Amino acid sequence: MPTILVVGSLAYDDVRTPVAHRDRVLGGAASYFASAASRYAPVRLVGVVGDDFRDEDVARLADQGIDLGGLERRHGDSFRWTGSYDFALDTAETINTDLGVFGDWRPKVPDGFAHSDFVFLANIDPEIQLAVLDQVRAPTAVALDTMNYWIDHSRDALLRVLRRVDIVSINEGEARQLCETFSIVRAARDILALGPRVLVVKRGEHGASLFTRESSFWAPAFPLEDVVDPTGAGDTFAGGFMGYLAECGSVDGPALRRAVLHGTVCASFAVERFSIDGIAGATRDEIARRYRALQDLIAV
Amino acid sequence: MPTILVVGSLAYDDVRTPVAHRDRVLGGAASYFASAASRYAPVRLVGVVGDDFRDEDVARLADQGIDLGGLERRHGDSFRWTGSYDFALDTAETINTDLGVFGDWRPKVPDGFAHSDFVFLANIDPEIQLAVLDQVRAPTAVALDTMNYWIDHSRDALLRVLRRVDIVSINEGEARQLCETFSIVRAARDILALGPRVLVVKRGEHGASLFTRESSFWAPAFPLEDVVDPTGAGDTFAGGFMGYLAECGSVDGPALRRAVLHGTVCASFAVERFSIDGIAGATRDEIARRYRALQDLIAV
Repeated sequence: MPTILVVGSLAYDDVRTPVAHRDRVLGGAASYFASAASRYAPVRLVGVVGDDFRDEDVARLADQGIDLGGLERRHGDSFRWTGSYDFALDTAETINTDLGVFGDWRPKVPDGFAHSDFVFLANIDPEIQLAVLDQVRAPTAVALDTMNYWIDHSRDALLRVLRRVDIVSINEGEARQLCETFSIVRAARDILALGPRVLVVKRGEHGASLFTRESSFWAPAFPLEDVVDPTGAGDTFAGGFMGYLAECGSVDGPALRRAVLHGTVCASFAVERFSIDGIAGATRDEIARRYRALQDLIAV
Repeated sequence: MPTILVVGSLAYDDVRTPVAHRDRVLGGAASYFASAASRYAPVRLVGVVGDDFRDEDVARLADQGIDLGGLERRHGDSFRWTGSYDFALDTAETINTDLGVFGDWRPKVPDGFAHSDFVFLANIDPEIQLAVLDQVRAPTAVALDTMNYWIDHSRDALLRVLRRVDIVSINEGEARQLCETFSIVRAARDILALGPRVLVVKRGEHGASLFTRESSFWAPAFPLEDVVDPTGAGDTFAGGFMGYLAECGSVDGPALRRAVLHGTVCASFAVERFSIDGIAGATRDEIARRYRALQDLIAV
């Protein structure tokens, strides 16, 4: 079975929505990604946490079969994010970010992780993403996520890392910002011209779009009556997407399309509960059932 | 071939977008609907225009094969709408509305139109939609569109007309407003409980969703590099949707899904140019080609 390596944040989130709030719940891109991807294939995690990180949260990740051989524990506080959502539950307003030990972290990929088949570089300084790429051999595919901050402040490094990855996973707004165009079609073409052969544009409640040089694929979000907390939806999507690719052992066109649906399904579980509770609690059977339901929602 | 009756507005629009503007161009729900639907099946139009309505615009509609036997010309000005779009080209800001002769119009359906197979009640006072329903026999299906104003100001009449139609075509925001819920899934269930057996929720650049009591179908918009003017997209969608149903002579589940794609394709042509120029200029061959492209964009 192909293996997946994820390098990214583990965090404690304080999340407010119009109807509920939770403090100090397990979050971070790597937590969400790994929880989803581990439903499909063996996942190795490289991340950093502080003194305050609870053993039970380490156990929650380990219990999902995630290999934590790359988890560093350092003196200081864990990455802490405080965010708030309005009634539309679409865009998070960041109230506060304390990088803690994540701030000056330079990931070290353990020797045993260097040969991974799929690598996901979660959102972090693109200079660090480049440094991680120097430590891995990923014969099948490397994917990365990024955010508006790096587009604004580290554009050159971001362009350099984009040349070295196979798959980019990015929000619709960030794709527009990166390419300075409102048209997603044009932005997709521009991003693919920068190096990657696959682009996934995450459109939140509106779904996700997949672009290659040959074609594009447009999937809706899985319709839900109640969304509890959209935090981590994008990273959970990426986890389901990469997880499925690893499981099926292919990155051809049809596999990529099915991977989008798996990402969509995983994200739908994630947003139904706070923290990783939704995706970690979904059985493979429930994932399969929702996958078939999603297929039916788009079949002509 | 089954026939289609549309009752609704013809207008002159003044439209501003961030990159262009046009004054006094042919618009109105019935113009857009009929231009799309007439690509598929014979269309009869019931509407009203003022002294200022140009003969060449009457000719433009007639040249598409639209039966204008229900077009009244009255003393006064035609319905005039002035709208503006920001860079996102999603929601129109209405700058001004002059109802003109449309304001106190009571549609009279000519005897020859009373037996139509499909009826589209474009957005207008629901009391008037009810009065139109009393004048027609529509054995196959009646569809209606409405808007936020009637939801706020004529809710009772709107609920009465909803009980008498088969298909509702409505914007996402209006569906939420009508049902006082943010969840489209819940809003859809509520609207179907009011009487219609089919609901189409138009989601603008994010596509359209179809709901019946048995299932739902989620289609993306047709991706375009350049949108020139979104005015009329929803009515053009409805025209392609109803037109296809009339052409194929069925309103079963698979036909409804294909109809959503036809509506999507027609709308994509409409937004590429001002006024009805885009949809009126699209050949049946171009429509078929874009339909196949759209099928490929959603195929798994």
